[in-house]
Amino acid sequence: MEPIRSRANARLKAARKLQAKRNRLTAGLFLAEGEDIVEEALAAGILPAESFLAAGRPPDAALAARLERGGPVHLVADDLLAELGSLGHPARVIAVFRIGDLPARAGGDLGVHLHRVIDPGNVGTVVRAAGALGPAFLSLSPGCSDPLSGKGVRASMGAVFRVAVDHGEAPPEGLRRVALVPAAERSLWQVDLRSPTVFVVGAERHGLPEELVSSADEVAAIPQAAGAESLNAAAAATVALYEAVRQRAAPG
Amino acid sequence: MEPIRSRANARLKAARKLQAKRNRLTAGLFLAEGEDIVEEALAAGILPAESFLAAGRPPDAALAARLERGGPVHLVADDLLAELGSLGHPARVIAVFRIGDLPARAGGDLGVHLHRVIDPGNVGTVVRAAGALGPAFLSLSPGCSDPLSGKGVRASMGAVFRVAVDHGEAPPEGLRRVALVPAAERSLWQVDLRSPTVFVVGAERHGLPEELVSSADEVAAIPQAAGAESLNAAAAATVALYEAVRQRAAPG
Repeated sequence: MEPIRSRANARLKAARKLQAKRNRLTAGLFLAEGEDIVEEALAAGILPAESFLAAGRPPDAALAARLERGGPVHLVADDLLAELGSLGHPARVIAVFRIGDLPARAGGDLGVHLHRVIDPGNVGTVVRAAGALGPAFLSLSPGCSDPLSGKGVRASMGAVFRVAVDHGEAPPEGLRRVALVPAAERSLWQVDLRSPTVFVVGAERHGLPEELVSSADEVAAIPQAAGAESLNAAAAATVALYEAVRQRAAPG
Repeated sequence: MEPIRSRANARLKAARKLQAKRNRLTAGLFLAEGEDIVEEALAAGILPAESFLAAGRPPDAALAARLERGGPVHLVADDLLAELGSLGHPARVIAVFRIGDLPARAGGDLGVHLHRVIDPGNVGTVVRAAGALGPAFLSLSPGCSDPLSGKGVRASMGAVFRVAVDHGEAPPEGLRRVALVPAAERSLWQVDLRSPTVFVVGAERHGLPEELVSSADEVAAIPQAAGAESLNAAAAATVALYEAVRQRAAPG
């Protein structure tokens, strides 16, 4: 197979467009970089629509064969593949996946709603925590960073392929809403988290707007040392998911 | 005051050298970028040895006056200040602090020992969590990323000025060692963390070496969903510190 050596190659151009959120939404596609992340997709039963491999240092042939079950596999000159990616250390493989193949929320009794968390690493880290400590679903307000950005997919370590992500100004209905507020009187462990629960978490600097706090069923704090900067959104969400898992494993 | 406009300026050159760990250790100095981080230092009672302000958009005069109590304050052409920094979005202030002014560990009944965690963001995030959820001390094995790197100080959100950091191949003596191992039989919440405790945490891919696991007093898991990538070192350490705080607040 002759590698793609031109930046103007139509397949490569189409893939490069997916670096912009607007184009991801239009095309219904996104990029995942790196063998470890692509393996997470395959492990979740999700095949790529198309794959690009580094011509100079391709991943092993068995992986290429598995990717080919999903769609065309192209060899690409290493420098052009690096341009398609977003990592400092270029990946050997970048694959295009369909947003429609990602899991949809079907109920679920544990979730996190993020309010205007703009840092892609933070959003990706919450996706990862939701995959590890749940599984939990994620709900994102407008203004949150897109978990399908290059940095978001990387920070999730591939958990985007297993965690259902909803979008909405408010958390989904039908679950108890527990808002995390650093100054709340009740500590997180004093709140019963055994019934279906969605945590409501704001960005560190701006916190949650009054309407999200007042519409919550419970307001809880993760108690912190005097004078400390509060935990960031990802750390707060991770601790909250852990506390729910703990309470549900050891009722009492 | 005439701003520094030459890259060859001796003060600026000396400060730029502090971007390398070797030079930080030789000089006993490190850099902190951004008004929020510098404010954390001042709040902890630590004054800079020297400060550099963006000539084109200096921070407010009151901050400059407070920095001057520590040592000389220089105005610097914005592009030269950006070169001294490590942030995508350049800071208005970069200050030089003395490593010897940072808090030293004096006992402490809660800590985290990191084993060969090379990611600067992860190490800085653990420093931040130790500041927020303790206060706890940190112990770093050889091979860990330097928490006084630009990225480390930034990720700590200034908690480096309040958290004592030790260095050693093993955790300090005199505390119960609780090693976090994803496959451990006991869950973290089943381990009594109310006596003086140091958590032992490895890097996500490589985990902990056998000797650190076998020398631990307890081995505990943060239970995770089947098939999930494990939590990263920063998330695991944050959850562990939370669990210790929870048990100590609500004994029984």
